[in-house]
Amino acid sequence: MSVVVNLDAERKRGARPTLDRLNALVADQLNEVNRVIIDRMDSRVALIPQLAGHIIAGGGKRLRPMLTLASARLCGYTGERHIHLAASVEFIHTATLLHDDVVDDSALRRGIATANSVWDNKASVLVGDFLFSRSFQLMVADGSLKVLKILSDAAATIAEGEVLQLMTSNNTETSEAAHLEVIRAKTAILFAAACRIGAVVAGRPGVEEEALDAYGLNLGIAFQLIDDMLDYSAAEAELGKSVGDDFRDGKITLPTILAFRRGSEEERVFWRRTLEDGDQEEGDLEQAIALMGRHGALADTVERARHYGAVARDGLAIFPASEEKTILLEVINFCIERAH
Amino acid sequence: MSVVVNLDAERKRGARPTLDRLNALVADQLNEVNRVIIDRMDSRVALIPQLAGHIIAGGGKRLRPMLTLASARLCGYTGERHIHLAASVEFIHTATLLHDDVVDDSALRRGIATANSVWDNKASVLVGDFLFSRSFQLMVADGSLKVLKILSDAAATIAEGEVLQLMTSNNTETSEAAHLEVIRAKTAILFAAACRIGAVVAGRPGVEEEALDAYGLNLGIAFQLIDDMLDYSAAEAELGKSVGDDFRDGKITLPTILAFRRGSEEERVFWRRTLEDGDQEEGDLEQAIALMGRHGALADTVERARHYGAVARDGLAIFPASEEKTILLEVINFCIERAH
Repeated sequence: MSVVVNLDAERKRGARPTLDRLNALVADQLNEVNRVIIDRMDSRVALIPQLAGHIIAGGGKRLRPMLTLASARLCGYTGERHIHLAASVEFIHTATLLHDDVVDDSALRRGIATANSVWDNKASVLVGDFLFSRSFQLMVADGSLKVLKILSDAAATIAEGEVLQLMTSNNTETSEAAHLEVIRAKTAILFAAACRIGAVVAGRPGVEEEALDAYGLNLGIAFQLIDDMLDYSAAEAELGKSVGDDFRDGKITLPTILAFRRGSEEERVFWRRTLEDGDQEEGDLEQAIALMGRHGALADTVERARHYGAVARDGLAIFPASEEKTILLEVINFCIERAH
Repeated sequence: MSVVVNLDAERKRGARPTLDRLNALVADQLNEVNRVIIDRMDSRVALIPQLAGHIIAGGGKRLRPMLTLASARLCGYTGERHIHLAASVEFIHTATLLHDDVVDDSALRRGIATANSVWDNKASVLVGDFLFSRSFQLMVADGSLKVLKILSDAAATIAEGEVLQLMTSNNTETSEAAHLEVIRAKTAILFAAACRIGAVVAGRPGVEEEALDAYGLNLGIAFQLIDDMLDYSAAEAELGKSVGDDFRDGKITLPTILAFRRGSEEERVFWRRTLEDGDQEEGDLEQAIALMGRHGALADTVERARHYGAVARDGLAIFPASEEKTILLEVINFCIERAH
């Protein structure tokens, strides 16, 4: 019996989707992206490459730049422009992370000390500004007003989404719709832009741009939903995400929204105390996870993510079969199934 | 005797340069700039226009956008593009102020509560990011890659200058050259860019672009030097600058650099205690001002500013006489003589 269980676990592990094929597809170009990143984060002001290097080296899958590279390839692009634009996308993402960690007062990111805890908030704010400016310099050097519009619109939406999240943070009454709006603005828009510019550099028609935009947007929503779910999924501590971070910060995510709304009045008192008042004690995280289990909040967050994954999949339907398409579809599976 | 003194004071007051003629020259267009600013700082996220409106309404001479408007006019420009670009320049400036106040932990700006004290650091960081993104959206809508390059380069230099200042802050050993580098990057570059784009929209040759860039750069240095001097000039409290802010923050500015370097070892102990260690007591500000007086630090800061003012003046020498030129030359006098 125990053999069966072990085999089953083995099989499951083996079947878990990875980013291996995406990594292999864009490996050479991703190396070039990394070179551009190293080169462009440099400055005669030593603190800038030190701090930027800390967060850029400190993990991250480079998912967004890889999406730009793979999307361009899907569109048959054979040039070099996507290298610099992928670096530009990663700089926007990194600048956002630096400012996010300041706003959330985070001490750890992916198990590594955040820049604001190694240096301080001041340095993180200013180096974030620098990377953001660098990102625009890269786009300007590329010279496409179309790309500039896509990424400057994305940057404005991200900032808007961050403020929106700040205003709804710790509010247990936040609706699923309002929260989805935050996810769309904060996370999904940059996924969408990263993919869309692949079609733009390849000079493909608007319908393909829109298809890649839809793929990226829905992939990004699915990605973030699973990320929020993983914060309550103890089995996944191995992924480098520490369980309970969001809970300790009183962050409102879909699992808490579903558990709060489906819960009894007594349970809502629990959620208000822990998330709104920030009054937490030993055992509260376990209780939160138990309540989520009772109401299927985690399982249904995954179901919601699957929905967006399915829409992302259909986003790519107009593209003929290709290795790139297969791999981009695998990315959807990765984003959702890394959970299980 | 007292009559003579009074008359003299009267005459001096009357002779003090103002921005009145610049204001009159660009009044109509500045109204349009303000309309663009109000329109583009809007967002469905209510906190954004609230916070942005607070800092944008909260004073400021709109000197940078006025320089863009007047420079374009100097170059014979009669179109509308400079309106949106002037708003873009002001957004970069405003975003920088929001982040500056977070980094400096300032409670007051021009005698008004800072956004970070009315709301908090988080909101100021994120709304700053939003305005910065908006600034790029305005440039992208204008569509000139040349302008985009000028302003994205300026933004990167500003951020670099801010980090440089952070690294040298409270260090009494800072050299005049190092400090000038900070001023150039933090303040003067945006003045230079604001002026240069006036020539760009007018389609003028490179030599005129460079001339306006030199005018703006040197004007910006002079402006910042006088600003730093005014922080120790009690007579100028009426200008809305509160005396001693920089001193209390332990900021290194040219007056402190000159006083430190020209001072005795005993005086340097005073400067280290007050600026480096932040250990200040009753009477220290008065002592600082007295030491500056002893060594001519304030007077020589003004002299240094006059030097940059003279270079700014020569920047405009290639332009034929015009009302606009006269007014831009008056701006130099204003920036320097507002001190006396």
